[in-house]
Amino acid sequence: MHARVVDFLKGLQDRICSALEDADGAARFREDSWHRPGGGGGRTRVIADGAVFEKGGVNFSEVFGDFPPEFAKTLPGEGTKFTATGVSLVIHPKSPLVPTVHANFRYLTHGSKSWFGGGADLTPCYPFEEDVVHFHKTWKRACTRHAAVADYAKMKKDCDEYFFLKHRNEARGVGGIFFDYAVATEAMFEFVKDAADAFVESYLPIVERRKSLVYTAEQRFFQEVRRGRYVEFNLVYDRGTLFGLKTDGRTESILMSLPPVVRYLYDFKPKPDSREAALTEYWLKPRDWAEE
Amino acid sequence: MHARVVDFLKGLQDRICSALEDADGAARFREDSWHRPGGGGGRTRVIADGAVFEKGGVNFSEVFGDFPPEFAKTLPGEGTKFTATGVSLVIHPKSPLVPTVHANFRYLTHGSKSWFGGGADLTPCYPFEEDVVHFHKTWKRACTRHAAVADYAKMKKDCDEYFFLKHRNEARGVGGIFFDYAVATEAMFEFVKDAADAFVESYLPIVERRKSLVYTAEQRFFQEVRRGRYVEFNLVYDRGTLFGLKTDGRTESILMSLPPVVRYLYDFKPKPDSREAALTEYWLKPRDWAEE
Repeated sequence: MHARVVDFLKGLQDRICSALEDADGAARFREDSWHRPGGGGGRTRVIADGAVFEKGGVNFSEVFGDFPPEFAKTLPGEGTKFTATGVSLVIHPKSPLVPTVHANFRYLTHGSKSWFGGGADLTPCYPFEEDVVHFHKTWKRACTRHAAVADYAKMKKDCDEYFFLKHRNEARGVGGIFFDYAVATEAMFEFVKDAADAFVESYLPIVERRKSLVYTAEQRFFQEVRRGRYVEFNLVYDRGTLFGLKTDGRTESILMSLPPVVRYLYDFKPKPDSREAALTEYWLKPRDWAEE
Repeated sequence: MHARVVDFLKGLQDRICSALEDADGAARFREDSWHRPGGGGGRTRVIADGAVFEKGGVNFSEVFGDFPPEFAKTLPGEGTKFTATGVSLVIHPKSPLVPTVHANFRYLTHGSKSWFGGGADLTPCYPFEEDVVHFHKTWKRACTRHAAVADYAKMKKDCDEYFFLKHRNEARGVGGIFFDYAVATEAMFEFVKDAADAFVESYLPIVERRKSLVYTAEQRFFQEVRRGRYVEFNLVYDRGTLFGLKTDGRTESILMSLPPVVRYLYDFKPKPDSREAALTEYWLKPRDWAEE
């Protein structure tokens, strides 16, 4: 299955980059190919200073070797030998009215076990209900097409729980789906392919609706403050980021997920009853958006 | 000893804030008093948008209660009851020619054990040899005045090792001193008092020499990129930050250490043979600066 997954993921990277370039209309992805000393490598593709996308990365990697023994024990399978391949993307638009998005689809083998993991989640600063509902409905439909292996309700709840900043008691965004250790059957591979190819449909209609809206300097300021939360989550909690940094992953590929310009203010609080206050008080509380 | 340490630290916070306000000449510290649900509280003092200091905090705290049992086992002493009091400061100047500085002096008790910890370290973007040497000499002199309890060579080496970003293979700054688990004898308290009161002398002469120098937009840009490294260190490695965030510390007081405006670029590399390239290639390599 490994070779078929790799073929699919490389094509996925091509299709997503192409769709994002079309939506941007100005900037193109640059590609850096890299090799991992312990085995394998990847194709990092980064877009910067576009008309729509301020910074984004769509990375493919295929690595193999030995897990650190202590880490290996925490995973399904036996021994230390592993393979891992995946596509991981984070897109930070320039406009505070266009949401940031993250998605990841990966396949791992460890001893006799193999599994898929991944998902997608949306992080708006100024959410529009239509967008949030569209994003969730896209993922729900993908799950429903593969109901024997994809439990939407569980994947939605797991996403809300994973992308959560405990020290802020605050969700990172409005959620999506998250799954891990999904036994690598053919049926699960079919789901992963279908879901991964739903990414473009989940996100680009939102970009098209919002990319030309005029925004204010105050909204841009608020976006830069909110991006600080994104950094806090990725550096303090995100398992993939921390595992990569602590096991000699390619730092620049891992940290391409960090937003381009960020502000950290002491004790910033939005004005009461503002759209900015509504973000944390209303939008970042988990709801069954697909049913709205 | 606890009460005498608290008295000293509160006075220290006053003296340092007053000296920093004089150096800034425009902004004043604002104070937030807070109470910790588990016991104790603190006085957070923050300066922002000054003539010299873009963002800075000088925090006093005095907390007590029970450590999480697993954490308690990793420390000297028995049981879970603890007290901790300290002053912690981070100052981010506006000018890229004025270095960022961090210092911390703390006193802990746990069961039958009590100890001091702390230190100070400097993080310039555009170092001047005179400044780096002055900073290190100040700390070496403080240690030498208390040679029976303060081993400068060890504290200097421990600082270089602690403030290190493994995933970058890069020091955070040019170092200083770092000590921990220093048994709380009267002689050690005398050292801590002397060292803590040397902070103003270690840093403000550097500020005075550099605060009026003209800098370029390119230098400011480089500072914003370098500040990204400061965030990476504090959120991925700093024990105090992670302990605070994961044990219901006051998030805004802990994260006041993050720089005000930060840029994360993909794979940024300074021009060869530039002052920017010299930062990592020359200045961030540990040296015995006090002997230069």
